[in-house]
Amino acid sequence: MTRPSTGRVAPEQRRTTGAPAPIREPGTARIAVDLLGGDHAPAVVVDGALRACQADPALHLLLVGPAEAADAVVAALDPDQRARVVTLGSDEGVRAAVRAVAEGRADAALSAGNTADTVTSAALHLGRWPGVRRPPLTAVLPSAAGRLVLLDVGSSVDPDKQTLAVHARLGAAYAAVVHEVPAPRVGLLTIGTESGKGDRLRRAVPPLLAGLDLPAGASYVGLVEGHDVVTGAVADVVVTDGFTGNVLLKGLETAYAALGSPDRTSTGVPPRAALLLGVAGTVVVCHGAASGPDVAAGIDLAARLHRRAAVPAMAALTTANEVFDER
Amino acid sequence: MTRPSTGRVAPEQRRTTGAPAPIREPGTARIAVDLLGGDHAPAVVVDGALRACQADPALHLLLVGPAEAADAVVAALDPDQRARVVTLGSDEGVRAAVRAVAEGRADAALSAGNTADTVTSAALHLGRWPGVRRPPLTAVLPSAAGRLVLLDVGSSVDPDKQTLAVHARLGAAYAAVVHEVPAPRVGLLTIGTESGKGDRLRRAVPPLLAGLDLPAGASYVGLVEGHDVVTGAVADVVVTDGFTGNVLLKGLETAYAALGSPDRTSTGVPPRAALLLGVAGTVVVCHGAASGPDVAAGIDLAARLHRRAAVPAMAALTTANEVFDER
Repeated sequence: MTRPSTGRVAPEQRRTTGAPAPIREPGTARIAVDLLGGDHAPAVVVDGALRACQADPALHLLLVGPAEAADAVVAALDPDQRARVVTLGSDEGVRAAVRAVAEGRADAALSAGNTADTVTSAALHLGRWPGVRRPPLTAVLPSAAGRLVLLDVGSSVDPDKQTLAVHARLGAAYAAVVHEVPAPRVGLLTIGTESGKGDRLRRAVPPLLAGLDLPAGASYVGLVEGHDVVTGAVADVVVTDGFTGNVLLKGLETAYAALGSPDRTSTGVPPRAALLLGVAGTVVVCHGAASGPDVAAGIDLAARLHRRAAVPAMAALTTANEVFDER
Repeated sequence: MTRPSTGRVAPEQRRTTGAPAPIREPGTARIAVDLLGGDHAPAVVVDGALRACQADPALHLLLVGPAEAADAVVAALDPDQRARVVTLGSDEGVRAAVRAVAEGRADAALSAGNTADTVTSAALHLGRWPGVRRPPLTAVLPSAAGRLVLLDVGSSVDPDKQTLAVHARLGAAYAAVVHEVPAPRVGLLTIGTESGKGDRLRRAVPPLLAGLDLPAGASYVGLVEGHDVVTGAVADVVVTDGFTGNVLLKGLETAYAALGSPDRTSTGVPPRAALLLGVAGTVVVCHGAASGPDVAAGIDLAARLHRRAAVPAMAALTTANEVFDER
């Protein structure tokens, strides 16, 4: 496996000391794509990769998986575009894609495969930020007020309260860096805003969140409910466990796909893909049931996050001034 | 307090033996309304009571709460209609409303107050069906396929697996009796349909559901996800804990209110109110933030459930052939 001849952008992570700063080529983004991930792999991943390539001339892909699937992408491209696609034969799927990011051969990785495998691979090969035990999947939903960050949407099930506090910090950083929200408002998702409502976890977390030092001038605005995720009126970031977040995300995404977005002012709907936040690299996860356009939107999200160096910026925000309670 | 002069319909519960069968007057429904329940009580409850009265000439109300609030309803009615509204001065709120049902002075009770208080009052004064420890709030959502029963939406937080099995039975009975679904399909809400996905509870429940004797020819169809609640394609009944169900319900209801119903064929959207299922009486719960029209829709739901004797029919279905594992 050799580096692609173009798009030689060094990874933004694990380069904080020692090595000279790499030359960044802002337009180019090299995305390692797991051809084996997802319910309909490799067909929909191949479809998504092609769509992404055709939509973004500065995109380079490292296709990880069976050679024949990768070849299908290459063959469908104009001959002068084929150098943008490099193949990495592997039966490891997401693990090899994430390792390519760790080794500097790609700028970001994308998989529609099993979330737990992706989280494990990313933690192993890229490393987690200080204090992050379970990196949350961070999704963006349209809301009546614009865009809303919802996390976790599937990584942490049965989390403890400390994990939700970490989600609050990470979500605040996402809203500040990616959505450029000044002083993001962070809410905790529960089922009633009176004190004492909610399950054991939700009754335990508020005091911790209220005392938390949030990055980017963010503030904890207290308890929010399901309807607040639709309106976006009271919070820019909504924190929850991965079970509840996944159920709500899949419900609302499907409703919006059928009925239209609640955000009447926006030009586009957020991609049906989520960033694995809190690992030292850009890793995007698509639904297992993602379509070709969903995969293309996920690749585009990975490229956009890379181009604006969002992950290192979020890492700097959340780890700058101490922070995480490691207990 | 005397009985209203009209609408002398005896309660359908606690009358299984001994006393002669009461004469049922099918059109009349006497609903005890908690004027003190809800974030904007009594104003929105008064508004809802008036709307309900005006829409349904066979409706009788027992207004439980401050006399001046009840008087406002009476005063707004035509003089010849005022006999349909009876006042029960009380500062007990839902407890007095539920007791009125237990004592045969009303056919059903409605509150927009604290759910836990309503559940406790109903369990105390009406009694629970055999095997039901935590009566679930049972909601109906429009789906692309028609209507879907979602339970629990707020009564049980941190339930055990046995509670979810009871929800499966009760939800099947609801779909069969109220929606007249032959052989309802019952699914368990989780975050991925592969085996082993989900949190501790969701990993523990499927074997129990798979072995369950469901009423009304219902069958357990396995794991479902958030999007299945919107489409309604794979299940008529979706079982979950009260936390997840409440979050999803409030999210989807708000999305549908803003964007339209996913059920393009129906003439009406289900009321934003839920039946407390598994108690020996008809008790309907509205959101704390319910509007006047929401309260009116909840009163209408209570009246419709009473008129078709839905609660005793569901009780008969779920308790007929033994059933609940009391462990």
